[in-house]
Amino acid sequence: MASFSSYIFLIILFIISVGASEIKSIYLPGTYQSSLLVKKHDEKTKIPFKTHYFPQILDHFTFLPKSSKVFYQKYLINDQYWHKEGGGPIFVYTGNEGNIDWFAVNTGFMVDIAPKFNALLVFIEHRFYGDSMPFGNNSYKSAKTLGYLNSQQALADYAVLIRSLKQNLSSDSSPVVVFGGSYGGMLAAWFRLKYPHIAIGAVASSAPILQFDKITPWSSFYDAVSQDFKDASLNCYKVIKGSWAELDALSTHDDGLIEVSKLFRTCKALHSVYSARDWLWEAFVYTAMVNYPTEANFMMPLPAYPVEEMCKIIDGLPKGASKLSKAFAAASLYYNYTQTEKCFNLEGGTDSHGLHGWDWQACTEMVMPMTCSNESMFPPSSFSYKEFSQDCKKQYGVKPRPHWITTEFGGYRIEQVLKRFGSNMIFSNGMQDPWSRGGVLKNISSSIVALVTQKGAHHVDFRSETKNDPDWLIMQRKQEVAIIEKWLEEYYKDLKQN
Amino acid sequence: MASFSSYIFLIILFIISVGASEIKSIYLPGTYQSSLLVKKHDEKTKIPFKTHYFPQILDHFTFLPKSSKVFYQKYLINDQYWHKEGGGPIFVYTGNEGNIDWFAVNTGFMVDIAPKFNALLVFIEHRFYGDSMPFGNNSYKSAKTLGYLNSQQALADYAVLIRSLKQNLSSDSSPVVVFGGSYGGMLAAWFRLKYPHIAIGAVASSAPILQFDKITPWSSFYDAVSQDFKDASLNCYKVIKGSWAELDALSTHDDGLIEVSKLFRTCKALHSVYSARDWLWEAFVYTAMVNYPTEANFMMPLPAYPVEEMCKIIDGLPKGASKLSKAFAAASLYYNYTQTEKCFNLEGGTDSHGLHGWDWQACTEMVMPMTCSNESMFPPSSFSYKEFSQDCKKQYGVKPRPHWITTEFGGYRIEQVLKRFGSNMIFSNGMQDPWSRGGVLKNISSSIVALVTQKGAHHVDFRSETKNDPDWLIMQRKQEVAIIEKWLEEYYKDLKQN
Repeated sequence: MASFSSYIFLIILFIISVGASEIKSIYLPGTYQSSLLVKKHDEKTKIPFKTHYFPQILDHFTFLPKSSKVFYQKYLINDQYWHKEGGGPIFVYTGNEGNIDWFAVNTGFMVDIAPKFNALLVFIEHRFYGDSMPFGNNSYKSAKTLGYLNSQQALADYAVLIRSLKQNLSSDSSPVVVFGGSYGGMLAAWFRLKYPHIAIGAVASSAPILQFDKITPWSSFYDAVSQDFKDASLNCYKVIKGSWAELDALSTHDDGLIEVSKLFRTCKALHSVYSARDWLWEAFVYTAMVNYPTEANFMMPLPAYPVEEMCKIIDGLPKGASKLSKAFAAASLYYNYTQTEKCFNLEGGTDSHGLHGWDWQACTEMVMPMTCSNESMFPPSSFSYKEFSQDCKKQYGVKPRPHWITTEFGGYRIEQVLKRFGSNMIFSNGMQDPWSRGGVLKNISSSIVALVTQKGAHHVDFRSETKNDPDWLIMQRKQEVAIIEKWLEEYYKDLKQN
Repeated sequence: MASFSSYIFLIILFIISVGASEIKSIYLPGTYQSSLLVKKHDEKTKIPFKTHYFPQILDHFTFLPKSSKVFYQKYLINDQYWHKEGGGPIFVYTGNEGNIDWFAVNTGFMVDIAPKFNALLVFIEHRFYGDSMPFGNNSYKSAKTLGYLNSQQALADYAVLIRSLKQNLSSDSSPVVVFGGSYGGMLAAWFRLKYPHIAIGAVASSAPILQFDKITPWSSFYDAVSQDFKDASLNCYKVIKGSWAELDALSTHDDGLIEVSKLFRTCKALHSVYSARDWLWEAFVYTAMVNYPTEANFMMPLPAYPVEEMCKIIDGLPKGASKLSKAFAAASLYYNYTQTEKCFNLEGGTDSHGLHGWDWQACTEMVMPMTCSNESMFPPSSFSYKEFSQDCKKQYGVKPRPHWITTEFGGYRIEQVLKRFGSNMIFSNGMQDPWSRGGVLKNISSSIVALVTQKGAHHVDFRSETKNDPDWLIMQRKQEVAIIEKWLEEYYKDLKQN
């Protein structure tokens, strides 16, 4: 079964207008995320961590009688490398939207460097994900419970937990460095900005903190995906770009659904042609994100540089074949690299259109407007705050606050603001990753730096090192280690002086 | 009538244990604050501002259906000096616990310097004070409404309001500098730390941001009050220190209450000897705070250097007079400098033991433990988190989070943390002010500086200039102006470059 597996925080609420600007579909890849998580969890991947639970406060920012309700927040600890007596550092991963085990498995970088730094490793799960459910099974019931799910509460959770942990471990002088990838990277960066008294530095990998409001052009994400494919092969890009019209044409045929079902080798007859479109879309977007230089299994098992591999498939097919069949063949690499699937379940995940964490966040605070330009390989689409707001209101009963993130965390003129404020931050980005366009791509000051790799993808630097890693990746990780070393040296020097 | 007038945010929940550690009294000066406010409001002091109301969101940090309720937040504007077209700066006062008009009246410094800077002046009222009541007359009803009153929500209010204001005024490039005194100074400092993308700098006058947890010794506040009196006259200090025992002795007499009522010239017979103690206590504490170098009327009308004047009264009385009668005579200066009172209403304010804003804040987040040491001129007293928590729970139904402020805003090792993080902050303190002991008294970096005056009192630098201002005060204000000028120069330079 090739399940929908859109784990990473890709929330693109895009509305395709066909004909008389009728809303045909709202596509929320994030809604499928739990299935992958559960799968991963079932696999019981061995990770070198002990699991703990912290009694966390429900609402840090009000003092209503119910605000002080306690829930249990999961966190993982590995102390095998820690030199506690010498004030060894504490490396904290600021968990993002999902089971924390999964982030621990996919952030081998921290485990790899822990021995060198004699560091304690801590991975903290984000509230309302994994096992950290403030209202148990009712956590996702409605806005009355989900209302407590947002980034500021999560950051405060981390602050309270870290402080308590250091106290319990009698390790007051141990410096804390926070790490995070993707949304977790945004949290790491924001944590350093909001809680500099708790974390001496932040390593934020693939953190699109500028993907809000009008800071980054709305079309940049899909333009970047398209660029990846264009760079691999101009023909490949053109084939995919042309495939949507063929699919649209089939949707008007009487036998269109049957034809598409056959072409896409679906296990069951399709109910909607748009399922096929979403299936393709997701494959291309996620493959661009995880266009890693080595074989990897983050979202799905994939070969090294999977975008190139997809394009090789497209370019290798006979000229006479339809664009849609070529697009299907390419997307199959994403869903079936292991060649184990006999048929595909395109609508398998769509039944569980429940209330899922990231959807909620995207419909409240994490509003990242995205459009498809005429130059992208996707069908052109626009974004309307009004329609978005109406949809969210309909789904959750609350309206988004689309300008709140930039009010709370900034983003506009970030170079000017942080040039003279703040320090000790690494923003790492790989330009293969479409999220990079919303990241910090230039050094801001001597200690707020951008590490950009042309061939890197979504937080590739955070993955465990492998023997096949290219030089640029080895170099990038070395730079990160050297910068963290500098932060720690300064910290210990300051500590001695005081 | 000499009303209880404890406007400034003095919340000292001190518990005097007499005999078998029985709790005799909980003294919350803050509870009397509204009366003064109303009085001030009635006076209709002319201020050069226009009043506006901003539709503010109730809860910035949750997305429950009721979080987005709107209330009207008052703010004042003076644009007569503003050079908007040239990107003139916006000076914002981050309102503290009270009617914003009162702060506007008592922060003449901002009005004085506005023409030089071509600045727009904005004074924003703190939620749950003055007219800015989220639930109208029900705002103070219980923890269910008061729960939304805290510093983080207030800071977010300021962020949202300032951003909206700049947008409406089409003055995106105008730099914002925040100012605040006392609790307002804490808010200004924290605002710069949490919202550096909104304010380019902060002038925090008499802001005891280190008066939390164990950062500052708990006895320092009352030791500082005592030092003021000791510096004026050792005899004066000794007389006051000895007066409490005389009062205690009277409390055991059969006719004690009558005697105290007579001695204190009360309008009505006293119900408790402790009313007299609180009355004295308040006079000495507030007089130390407002030990200004010129005649002033911040809390009460008082002569220049009122502590010295009080001590002159004590030292001038016959040796044979009781210590208590001397203490009474000194305290009368505070309540009756204008010589208009025929009798004193010591218990006048105690009836209105309602739910008042600062009491709430002190019982939830603003927990500032204070004790009286044996060396102070006050009766020794201790502080117990447990008892404090029980009292607050009893009064409001919620427990304090005594370590939350230092988790959210820091404070421990502040020099080390801010030495390499943040910029553009002035912490001004006058050492006559007992709150100075919880302030930042040393430069932290080249742009986070402490301006300390030995003869200054509670945010004296923020008062309007007068022809009698001493040189050190003129100099201090000049320094502040020069530093703000530097921030602005840098800002405009950076702006041009980008």
